[in-house]
Amino acid sequence: MDEAIFEQRVSLITLAVGDMQRAAAFYEALGWCRVESPDGVIAFDLIGQTLGLYSRAALAEETGLPEEALRGSGGMTLAYNVREKEDVATLLARAVGAGARLLKPAQDVFWGGHHGYFEDPDGHIWEVAHNPFSPLGPDGAFRWNGYG
Amino acid sequence: MDEAIFEQRVSLITLAVGDMQRAAAFYEALGWCRVESPDGVIAFDLIGQTLGLYSRAALAEETGLPEEALRGSGGMTLAYNVREKEDVATLLARAVGAGARLLKPAQDVFWGGHHGYFEDPDGHIWEVAHNPFSPLGPDGAFRWNGYG
Repeated sequence: MDEAIFEQRVSLITLAVGDMQRAAAFYEALGWCRVESPDGVIAFDLIGQTLGLYSRAALAEETGLPEEALRGSGGMTLAYNVREKEDVATLLARAVGAGARLLKPAQDVFWGGHHGYFEDPDGHIWEVAHNPFSPLGPDGAFRWNGYG
Repeated sequence: MDEAIFEQRVSLITLAVGDMQRAAAFYEALGWCRVESPDGVIAFDLIGQTLGLYSRAALAEETGLPEEALRGSGGMTLAYNVREKEDVATLLARAVGAGARLLKPAQDVFWGGHHGYFEDPDGHIWEVAHNPFSPLGPDGAFRWNGYG
């Protein structure tokens, strides 16, 4: 396996929110501009990563965690996007080997990608994902509509 | 006030952890390399931002939140670093005006910087900081030991 499979970057920061429009209005009031995205997610491209707003109920379903666990500062996940589909399972296994708890094994997702989730030893939630529609930049940078 | 005071970026992602060495060992087992940092914080430079590990007790003291609130996925904060010291208070005021709750007003910090904290409408915790020792890159990127 490629030693550099887990490069030093975070592809997405996802904030779980109670009301998508209220949450978006808050960040827009601070000056941020969203990029176009499908219903159900609101995306702001940052430097080399995207910050997403996602409903708490949807994130609970997505991660299998109780909704209460995603309240307040708890409603935040980090995502690491890989270049090859098969890297999802490889990286999840590596994380488990390092002490992580597997929340969701590698699997195809309805939107056409492939992903899984683990929890680090302190309970922080990471998604590992392959998104064929958003290729990464040469340095691994992520943005909502991809590079190249 | 500069409309662009809150550019679209996150300077630091801080994970609250129970045991600094265990947490660092986990991310190092996945292949990450830390940069030199003072005792009490462990830092990994990412693309244009730093991921830091910080003890849960220290982060509770820093934010004024109960330690229980910083367990599991809850133990995560985002930081936005500004270019000028006075921008800290300006941005905090703007956040409060947009619906945020002020957790800690702008103040000097023992390490020589200036900062404050707010909570977004869903409880996500943001630090706004000016760090004179880590100047930002031209595009606003942050790394532990600064640019330029």
